[in-house]
Amino acid sequence: MILNLLLTGDELMSGDIVDSNSAMIARELLGCGWTIRRKLTVGDDLPDLIEAMQTLARDSDVLLVNGGLGPTVDDLTAQALAGAGAVPLAEHPAALEHLRRWCERLGVPLNAANRKQALLPQGADIIANGSGSAVGFSMRLGRCLVLCTPGVPRELEQMLGDEILPMLRARFAPGATVVRRFALFGLGESTLQQRISDAIPDWPQEVGLGFRAGFPQLDLKLTTHGEPARRLADALLPRLTPLIEDFLIGEDDLTLPARLVQLLQQRGARLTCAESCTGGEIAALLTQVPGASTVFDAGFVTYSDAIKHRVLGVDPAVLASVGAVSEAVVLQMAAGALRVSGADYAIAVSGIAGPDGGSAEKPVGTVWIAWGARDTLRAQRLQIRFPRRQFQYYVSYIGLDLIRRALQGIDTEPPYFRLRKTP
Amino acid sequence: MILNLLLTGDELMSGDIVDSNSAMIARELLGCGWTIRRKLTVGDDLPDLIEAMQTLARDSDVLLVNGGLGPTVDDLTAQALAGAGAVPLAEHPAALEHLRRWCERLGVPLNAANRKQALLPQGADIIANGSGSAVGFSMRLGRCLVLCTPGVPRELEQMLGDEILPMLRARFAPGATVVRRFALFGLGESTLQQRISDAIPDWPQEVGLGFRAGFPQLDLKLTTHGEPARRLADALLPRLTPLIEDFLIGEDDLTLPARLVQLLQQRGARLTCAESCTGGEIAALLTQVPGASTVFDAGFVTYSDAIKHRVLGVDPAVLASVGAVSEAVVLQMAAGALRVSGADYAIAVSGIAGPDGGSAEKPVGTVWIAWGARDTLRAQRLQIRFPRRQFQYYVSYIGLDLIRRALQGIDTEPPYFRLRKTP
Repeated sequence: MILNLLLTGDELMSGDIVDSNSAMIARELLGCGWTIRRKLTVGDDLPDLIEAMQTLARDSDVLLVNGGLGPTVDDLTAQALAGAGAVPLAEHPAALEHLRRWCERLGVPLNAANRKQALLPQGADIIANGSGSAVGFSMRLGRCLVLCTPGVPRELEQMLGDEILPMLRARFAPGATVVRRFALFGLGESTLQQRISDAIPDWPQEVGLGFRAGFPQLDLKLTTHGEPARRLADALLPRLTPLIEDFLIGEDDLTLPARLVQLLQQRGARLTCAESCTGGEIAALLTQVPGASTVFDAGFVTYSDAIKHRVLGVDPAVLASVGAVSEAVVLQMAAGALRVSGADYAIAVSGIAGPDGGSAEKPVGTVWIAWGARDTLRAQRLQIRFPRRQFQYYVSYIGLDLIRRALQGIDTEPPYFRLRKTP
Repeated sequence: MILNLLLTGDELMSGDIVDSNSAMIARELLGCGWTIRRKLTVGDDLPDLIEAMQTLARDSDVLLVNGGLGPTVDDLTAQALAGAGAVPLAEHPAALEHLRRWCERLGVPLNAANRKQALLPQGADIIANGSGSAVGFSMRLGRCLVLCTPGVPRELEQMLGDEILPMLRARFAPGATVVRRFALFGLGESTLQQRISDAIPDWPQEVGLGFRAGFPQLDLKLTTHGEPARRLADALLPRLTPLIEDFLIGEDDLTLPARLVQLLQQRGARLTCAESCTGGEIAALLTQVPGASTVFDAGFVTYSDAIKHRVLGVDPAVLASVGAVSEAVVLQMAAGALRVSGADYAIAVSGIAGPDGGSAEKPVGTVWIAWGARDTLRAQRLQIRFPRRQFQYYVSYIGLDLIRRALQGIDTEPPYFRLRKTP
């Protein structure tokens, strides 16, 4: 089945909103093994819409149109589909009935603007909308089935699940696409690609190898079409796993903070953090995970020397002699956080996030990280060349990853330890 | 100038990521008065990409291609553009030099995967990438200028600002579209729309009124085409300003944390925070602002009762009698944070972020916030019905906004104080 997607709306063209509907549609379709061939977005312009529908319909089995079903003058989908199919608009009795009931339920009168939503291309069938005023509708353009859906995300989601997927499953064979995703941290896309090419030179063409360089996690994806290819992918796993296992957070959408909370829970251990340059990001990342309170109960943001001394007991003489961005200070910060909180593990960071504050000896991007338990505290200097916000985020992830590695007993040196040279 | 946009990547088709690049591109272009005509997204499929480039180039002055410049086998943009232009790929010396320097700076060897990024369509010109490994490149397809850009958002953003916009400004007349944006917090879209309709019923049609409901900020946009409409918009401002001034953070991309750092700097004042349910987010938001260290030097994440007592001196008897989510406790947290840090202002929050931990009396979403200076501490109970992550983020923004209002002497009750009913 060849399925194309047409998204409509000036707000999608102007940058006013970020389109999340098409990702939702793609994920729902993938659940049936189908993929989207191409995705076109156009503004609220009638000739553009008509041309887009006609063009896309020519090489689609299914064209899913999203948006433009509302009551206002810039909602043009019905008019455009009528134009593309060269049929008039006509008031659809079932659509009108839906609107009447919807207004009744809300206790509002059926006004002219609402009534416009019952004007559909002649011959179109309606698609029920369980939660909004606008019904969806379907019609054939040539051999292509065109499905028009509302732009409101929760209305779209309900219509997809209740109406559209059952309709497509009844008419088309299930797709054969299966995607397996591995979430990784600490390995660059090109390094991983090279590792895989080196270790598995006979990688079968039938298994699509994909990467998604999120920040800061990296997703590795194996995509297969059909059962024989899926079995090939399974057979690759014993050779793939050794290449990624030190970096593996988990499958699908697992994040490093969520994985770390799992690992700490399994060990009944608690973590604390003493943050200077990351400014609370490590604590915030951990506490975004539901249930974080079982493994985390204290975090310290100590931005100035005075606060490092007063809250964590860092020695003022050490601060004065080697400076806040130093091995001695992060080790004392970590020890202080362990002492004050009573936690089992600590992360401490002190660095220069920029854009200002660097020196020749400690340029912007210099950071010292300490991590471990009371008796196993270690520290490492890194040089991270990212703008302030990304620097804070990436350093926080490194801190969390060092505890993950410690808990999992991974003792290979993480590749980010090589990020220690000054530029 | 007719500009079309081609977005590439299986991850955009599969729903793995939500495309935010095209919104960024649209906003940057609008800064020069240009708009995007249509936007096509295709997966990593060579014939599809070639056809898309050829089709779009036929009716574009400029075709901006985003994504597919990376080192891996699914990065096909260069190959596709070569195919579309019927030219071979060739190693581009300047691109190779860029890769060499990039690897050198990172202290990694230049491997074959990276080296692939220097293979560009013969005759293409490179576009400098200030922060990533992949250079951009440009080439003509017929009369259309094709510009290929990296998918990594911060690389794209830098390339747009440093290279592409100057290049387009040199070749094309500026567009006539002007957008003026006001960043607001604490006011809903429909409330603001109603306020404006009531106060300015004669709003001129030539001034487009738009809203972008970001989370948690709201943007108000005035869009005009041409000089007479722009003057009409200017003339509206004295009537618009009184409707929004209490909620106004600033123009364009100013964020509430950045505005608050400005206000604190102007007054030579320092802020501290004591966070339970927000878990470090308030500190992280503040310290994301460059120069935050001039106004912030201590934050406390006190997740458990024991830590609230030990670090901030909250009375254990009070914790035992009224619980951690209470007026008395947030007031003691704020007072404790002021005492330990020596700061001038404090924010303290304690609440139930969910998904678990609620009770009949204090359901999930209940939060107490205290704010002010030592002698002016106040507290407020709110009920915020968002999922955990959004709850934390929104509550953090409310805390920051309460200090902003206090510093600006705004004494109207913020609309979010009405969020106090239990569901």
